[in-house]
Amino acid sequence: MVTETAIVVRSTELDPNGHVNNAKFLEYLEWGRFDWFADSGLDLNQLAPKYGVVVANVNMNYRREARRGERLRVRTWLVARGESSFRYGQDILNERGEVVVDAEVVNVGFDMVERRSAPLPEELRRRFDELIVPGKLRQVGATAARR
Amino acid sequence: MVTETAIVVRSTELDPNGHVNNAKFLEYLEWGRFDWFADSGLDLNQLAPKYGVVVANVNMNYRREARRGERLRVRTWLVARGESSFRYGQDILNERGEVVVDAEVVNVGFDMVERRSAPLPEELRRRFDELIVPGKLRQVGATAARR
Amino acid sequence: MVTETAIVVRSTELDPNGHVNNAKFLEYLEWGRFDWFADSGLDLNQLAPKYGVVVANVNMNYRREARRGERLRVRTWLVARGESSFRYGQDILNERGEVVVDAEVVNVGFDMVERRSAPLPEELRRRFDELIVPGKLRQVGATAARR
Amino acid sequence: MVTETAIVVRSTELDPNGHVNNAKFLEYLEWGRFDWFADSGLDLNQLAPKYGVVVANVNMNYRREARRGERLRVRTWLVARGESSFRYGQDILNERGEVVVDAEVVNVGFDMVERRSAPLPEELRRRFDELIVPGKLRQVGATAARR
Repeated sequence: MVTETAIVVRSTELDPNGHVNNAKFLEYLEWGRFDWFADSGLDLNQLAPKYGVVVANVNMNYRREARRGERLRVRTWLVARGESSFRYGQDILNERGEVVVDAEVVNVGFDMVERRSAPLPEELRRRFDELIVPGKLRQVGATAARR
Repeated sequence: MVTETAIVVRSTELDPNGHVNNAKFLEYLEWGRFDWFADSGLDLNQLAPKYGVVVANVNMNYRREARRGERLRVRTWLVARGESSFRYGQDILNERGEVVVDAEVVNVGFDMVERRSAPLPEELRRRFDELIVPGKLRQVGATAARR
Repeated sequence: MVTETAIVVRSTELDPNGHVNNAKFLEYLEWGRFDWFADSGLDLNQLAPKYGVVVANVNMNYRREARRGERLRVRTWLVARGESSFRYGQDILNERGEVVVDAEVVNVGFDMVERRSAPLPEELRRRFDELIVPGKLRQVGATAARR
Repeated sequence: MVTETAIVVRSTELDPNGHVNNAKFLEYLEWGRFDWFADSGLDLNQLAPKYGVVVANVNMNYRREARRGERLRVRTWLVARGESSFRYGQDILNERGEVVVDAEVVNVGFDMVERRSAPLPEELRRRFDELIVPGKLRQVGATAARR
């Protein structure tokens, strides 16, 4: 499963350089992960009491600028999962299919009461294992960019 | 040179989890890099006409939560420079000296008219070479956390 | 002319109360005014050298909460114009046609070099006078809410 | 009681006009109201179960620009209170004592479970009545600007 989140770049997302600020792209990626989770059919609130998900690592490359009014697509797929963490591949494409940003984001299960990492609930592991996109994941972006 | 930027976590920087959102930390890091540049004595606007700096890569780890009212310090140092890019080490410490976030950020010189990467101006290279912090840079954070 | 800007409420636009933060709605309104300007056929960059527009006053009412995933519409219309300023009516409706926010926003022409207010260029006055929505403007929102 | 919140304008708070975006000032005002509440000795979480405060109306004037690195002060005082709502006066001053923004903000008590307005708890009414700043409140700003 690779989900797509459609975005229009808005005025307040630009910085004085006239393009989308580097930190705003990280918000775009979060929007994409929420959409991925919604499409997975999983509901964090139902999975386990007080269970949540937080970000542990972000590694993102900025490939091109994006400007006000551009229509972007955030693509999100699950790369791998461990005992308590899981890793997404994500990229952001512009209207010409060019990669604007690509990234890997590690999330970790989190006990929202104890405020510390927690193992993935069994239901989530099973569903994750179905949804992982195997193979050379960055090529998903590369393929689209070639079209 | 390692610069410090003092921050108080503000209400609008929190997300529904009640802690600083992952993308907001990336804004904090940008604030730190601006302070580093100011302390370096370099003025981008004077260095070369239409010369700017943009972010090429961010690799950041989230180690601890931060909450409203916490006083954080963003530390910023230059790790290395190439022909057109340069790399910062950064971390964010809380009041107990614990590492909240650590990161490496690659910036690249940018021609603001042609909108593409540009070689570092000579004056900037010279000053950068004076300012690079050699050695095991992440230990700067580790040391503080042990105090 | 009343323009509509379609918005999906995103995760990073929520605050710890779990709803869209009060300041974020003001960004939504700015997005609506940019769309209004685009639909007007006017191009600020062409009108006059170094001419821009800044906000002078905002008066906004918060009527209902908005939550992640809600689809909102920002409606924007011109209420009046003076020698150097002009006034928009705006509201934000949810999927049930309920008013979430309504507002009046005064903009003022601005000399981006001298950094002070500047009279409206003649071309802009003429176009504005064609576009003003006369009458009881808040009822535009009220009507929609009744549908 | 008039509280002051010290702010340094940060890079990501600017828009393509090179000054603080109009919506960001509304975040600054929220930061000021949180500081006012902290100084009042009141703790919303202790006052009443599931009781919160939300914004009902904002009326703000933009008087001057603010730029990166400027040190601003957000001043906040309570103007009046009703049965379920209360009204703040706020302004933002720059280093020269000039008013950058002034505003009135109406808050309303809110039942966070029922998601609707709720009367002010008795303890909060009593404390508010002690803290109201009587008289011509906008002159607080005007006086400072004259110094």
